[in-house]
Amino acid sequence: MTESNSRLAPRLRLKAGDTIALGPGKAQLLELIQHHRSISAAARALKMSYRRAWLLVDTMNTCFKSPLVFTATGGSQGGGAELSEEGQKVLKLYRQYEKAVAERPELTELAAMLSDESTL
Amino acid sequence: MTESNSRLAPRLRLKAGDTIALGPGKAQLLELIQHHRSISAAARALKMSYRRAWLLVDTMNTCFKSPLVFTATGGSQGGGAELSEEGQKVLKLYRQYEKAVAERPELTELAAMLSDESTL
Repeated sequence: MTESNSRLAPRLRLKAGDTIALGPGKAQLLELIQHHRSISAAARALKMSYRRAWLLVDTMNTCFKSPLVFTATGGSQGGGAELSEEGQKVLKLYRQYEKAVAERPELTELAAMLSDESTL
Repeated sequence: MTESNSRLAPRLRLKAGDTIALGPGKAQLLELIQHHRSISAAARALKMSYRRAWLLVDTMNTCFKSPLVFTATGGSQGGGAELSEEGQKVLKLYRQYEKAVAERPELTELAAMLSDESTL
């Protein structure tokens, strides 16, 4: 994330109907799954239960036309997971979107109106 | 809010440190206070307790250099409230920001990747 407006950090949630299809937490989970190639390792890195991480993945996989995360059973490492091509694209678009949103001039104007205490 | 990408609705929260200085709920509260010239009427319109509305206003007033909402005691209508010049400016900037964010091309691309069910 850019720090150009670090006094005000925009957090972007994308709602599809009543469901949050994507937001800061889900994007971070995707990133960690990509890095660790494992849902359970990603969950541990986020201090989140495996069940919760799995449910977040399931929500994303359901929201999008194609699954964003694939899992494999078996293997000496107990399976593993990876982002599909769509998962990689969604993550990249979300990060680009966050960056563009963080660089908007309205944010700079709003940040300049903050009191000094509100950065604590 | 624009409906140009209605299948994915971005929700924008602005965090100053650990505090949400502004988000969809607070912006709507400001708008209703401007309309009703009363915190309690705005709270009723949002089916929110007066206490909760007052706390949200207090958070905003503390986050920004100048208070966004002024209240008056007494009077035949039991006081009343109005947005300060800064409050009006913050609300306008936030709405402009929301509009710009809703019109980003990344959102169109992400929305096109959603499954048909996820608009329900």
